[in-house]
Amino acid sequence: MKFVVGHKNPDTDSIASAIVLAYFLDCYPAKLGKLNPETEFVLRKFGVMEPETIESAKNKELILVDHSEKSQSLDDLEEGKLLAIVDHHKVGLTTVEPILYYAKPVGATATVIAELYFKKALDLIGGKNKELTPAYAGLLLSAIISDTVLFKSPTTTELDKEMAKKLAEIAGIKNIEEFGLEILKAKSIVGKLKPEEIVEMDYKVYDFNGKKVMVGQVEVIDVKEVEDKKEEIKRLLKEKLEKEGYDLILFMITDIMREGSEILVIGNKEMFEKAFNVKLEGDSIFLEGVMSRKKQIIPPLERVYK
Amino acid sequence: MKFVVGHKNPDTDSIASAIVLAYFLDCYPAKLGKLNPETEFVLRKFGVMEPETIESAKNKELILVDHSEKSQSLDDLEEGKLLAIVDHHKVGLTTVEPILYYAKPVGATATVIAELYFKKALDLIGGKNKELTPAYAGLLLSAIISDTVLFKSPTTTELDKEMAKKLAEIAGIKNIEEFGLEILKAKSIVGKLKPEEIVEMDYKVYDFNGKKVMVGQVEVIDVKEVEDKKEEIKRLLKEKLEKEGYDLILFMITDIMREGSEILVIGNKEMFEKAFNVKLEGDSIFLEGVMSRKKQIIPPLERVYK
Repeated sequence: MKFVVGHKNPDTDSIASAIVLAYFLDCYPAKLGKLNPETEFVLRKFGVMEPETIESAKNKELILVDHSEKSQSLDDLEEGKLLAIVDHHKVGLTTVEPILYYAKPVGATATVIAELYFKKALDLIGGKNKELTPAYAGLLLSAIISDTVLFKSPTTTELDKEMAKKLAEIAGIKNIEEFGLEILKAKSIVGKLKPEEIVEMDYKVYDFNGKKVMVGQVEVIDVKEVEDKKEEIKRLLKEKLEKEGYDLILFMITDIMREGSEILVIGNKEMFEKAFNVKLEGDSIFLEGVMSRKKQIIPPLERVYK
Repeated sequence: MKFVVGHKNPDTDSIASAIVLAYFLDCYPAKLGKLNPETEFVLRKFGVMEPETIESAKNKELILVDHSEKSQSLDDLEEGKLLAIVDHHKVGLTTVEPILYYAKPVGATATVIAELYFKKALDLIGGKNKELTPAYAGLLLSAIISDTVLFKSPTTTELDKEMAKKLAEIAGIKNIEEFGLEILKAKSIVGKLKPEEIVEMDYKVYDFNGKKVMVGQVEVIDVKEVEDKKEEIKRLLKEKLEKEGYDLILFMITDIMREGSEILVIGNKEMFEKAFNVKLEGDSIFLEGVMSRKKQIIPPLERVYK
């Protein structure tokens, strides 16, 4: 059986890319873990079923989307047959055999897939150039909006905007801004979540030279939404650090409107200070303009851990 | 300055792919080391200048073709800005930032580039859909013939054959078989080379879990071409092993007509026996059907070194 699957703690880009690419490749979409509230909202809005959850790579052929880090994939990835990777992140793994690899430094994996569709070039990666349905166009559009925070993230490229426009036409969405705010609001039900839910919502685990590092992120319309839960969030992260042997945990509270992130820093604070050339007072700091984990947090961290 | 560059000890695929992709991307082709006799023959045949040799990545933007192993690239690769990789090998490196990565499991990088050309999809990787000249088509065709050993290597795919046919039309080559044998003969001037030239002709260095492994290859129309030089080749490889700290050196004498390779095994013979499930008598063995370093030698080696 052949599956297209995104990363652990799936976000809208991982789910939408898996569903739509599986459609073009004539195979099955899958997910690694529960949907977040934003993705649930998006699937409901377009009337699309959620992909099945898989727990092992055994006896499966796999196409990874939206990630290439082993730590973000199936634990037993090596038990399966890795056929392909379609992504927009840094290269996170090496392979033993040649595979199909297609990644572009753009805002979302959905952009990469949409471009192949509009160029009628899906056959380059073994797919069919079938018609994109309005619902699937809506999923890809939502994924781009989500990953680029409505084109405000510094990862945003002209291609993301161009694809979003074309997808909106097919999906029958007249006002992308308005639709985008609707999605961001679904995201920002954060205010209603418990601290333990916020912590688990969207995090990624990295292995930097043998040191485990976790970077979580939550996006809010206003940092105040989580103000009264911050102490409890820090306590939970400290617990996680000790239990699971992390060297460092960062938690980004990204303020979409102010365009920056408050970073909670748990564990090896010196590494954080060195990476970002800042001095911490207490255990958090607001970084102006920092909204992207992938582009603004991971590269400097990886450099200092080298 | 922006350069497209292939691997060390360049072969025809590395050189042809660098030249043609640089043409489509409007930048400069480069090489890492001297041309081999086959590539010299091909460039002369089509009247194309050889690319300049570069020795450092400093102040350069780089597009790697036909490799992704750091050990096969510029020694100071990290000093430059890696923009993209276009390849047909296994994924050999991880990166700190997102890049463009396009690789397909086919017989040659030239096939990957030719497919993008015929699909008018070069803009997907930032190129222009310009006309391919007969000379450049000839280079790509030669690269496919060389890497697939005239479609006999097990790495050969239907796409390689299809692209070769289309390229031959543009290049004005009526009989691919005949033209292919001409190239293979240029390759098989091996019989006229000195042992030290044969050893240096085409080798790749791998880092498997901290152990250095080298795999050299020479292609002959008949193993007898190198029969009387084998003892001296082994002596030179032993010297290399000790001087440069290899754990294992394999040297493939690939017999194109018999479709198999005699493998000279220097160093950690147990690892070789384990990887290929064979028993060595002496220091060499003929492996029937084994013609591809990339597909048939490297994967089993990498597995046992894990």
